Amino acid sequence: MKRTDTSEWPCTIARATTIFGDHWNVLLLREAFYGVRRFEDFQQSLGIGRGILTERLSGLVHDGLLVKVEYQDKPLRHEYRLTDKGRDAFPVLMSMAAWADRHMVGPEGTPVIFEHKTCGHDFHAEVVCSHCGDPVDLRDTGGRWGPGHPTHRQDAADDDRRP
Amino acid sequence: MKRTDTSEWPCTIARATTIFGDHWNVLLLREAFYGVRRFEDFQQSLGIGRGILTERLSGLVHDGLLVKVEYQDKPLRHEYRLTDKGRDAFPVLMSMAAWADRHMVGPEGTPVIFEHKTCGHDFHAEVVCSHCGDPVDLRDTGGRWGPGHPTHRQDAADDDRRP
Repeated sequence: MKRTDTSEWPCTIARATTIFGDHWNVLLLREAFYGVRRFEDFQQSLGIGRGILTERLSGLVHDGLLVKVEYQDKPLRHEYRLTDKGRDAFPVLMSMAAWADRHMVGPEGTPVIFEHKTCGHDFHAEVVCSHCGDPVDLRDTGGRWGPGHPTHRQDAADDDRRP
Repeated sequence: MKRTDTSEWPCTIARATTIFGDHWNVLLLREAFYGVRRFEDFQQSLGIGRGILTERLSGLVHDGLLVKVEYQDKPLRHEYRLTDKGRDAFPVLMSMAAWADRHMVGPEGTPVIFEHKTCGHDFHAEVVCSHCGDPVDLRDTGGRWGPGHPTHRQDAADDDRRP
């Protein structure tokens, strides 16, 4: 089934779902963050079907999160490396992990502890305001159309998608 | 096609994908954050098919992010309200939006500007270390098994999923 294409919706959350709103994409990025680069290694660590894997890797290359690089000539071999755009998805996955640590972990505790090498402490991700540094909370957040919203352009018309 | 169930994988990122790794779930949460509560309103604002909508709303109720509440007796009507667990997903969506604002917005600028009411400034979400407050970066982050990982338990066996 073809997914609804939200990549040009006037909402950055909707646009982001074209990447993060697919669980294989997220799991492939996770593997890439752990250092996985090769098709066979992605396949083995996730138990993902080869057809789906081929499609998802191509998608992540197409969308600029991975780049396909030839690392061997004879026989020809490729690997998939993170781009800056792909590496920048790491904090998003960490915010997911922090949420799941609060809501999808039983009394046995978390399966994974994250360590922040620069400060030397175990940590979880916190999502904060870029201006004041306070944690982001739904009740304290508002929004308005920005310059890239259709209502700001000549060709604006009947698009009333929120906020 | 049935999705691989990652809800009990020993990785909080994988667990979180059971919710966020589905673009309809994310878009429905977005609508709920904007105040949408009723089936017809979700349907209208997203243009989502009724069958898919029914299934996703049931899933979000089952997973505890929404609660289905009767708001009218005759005729019987229900609405879907955010739980604390659901509301707590807001920062995750904001981290997605911040990523898309950097990587999926053209020269025309962002379609949506977020405002932080408590500090009175426009802002974007930043994902930081809970200990030192520095931005989270892949290169500075490590991990180890936590108490909830199978290798810590009697029934541990051959599970070698990362980190």
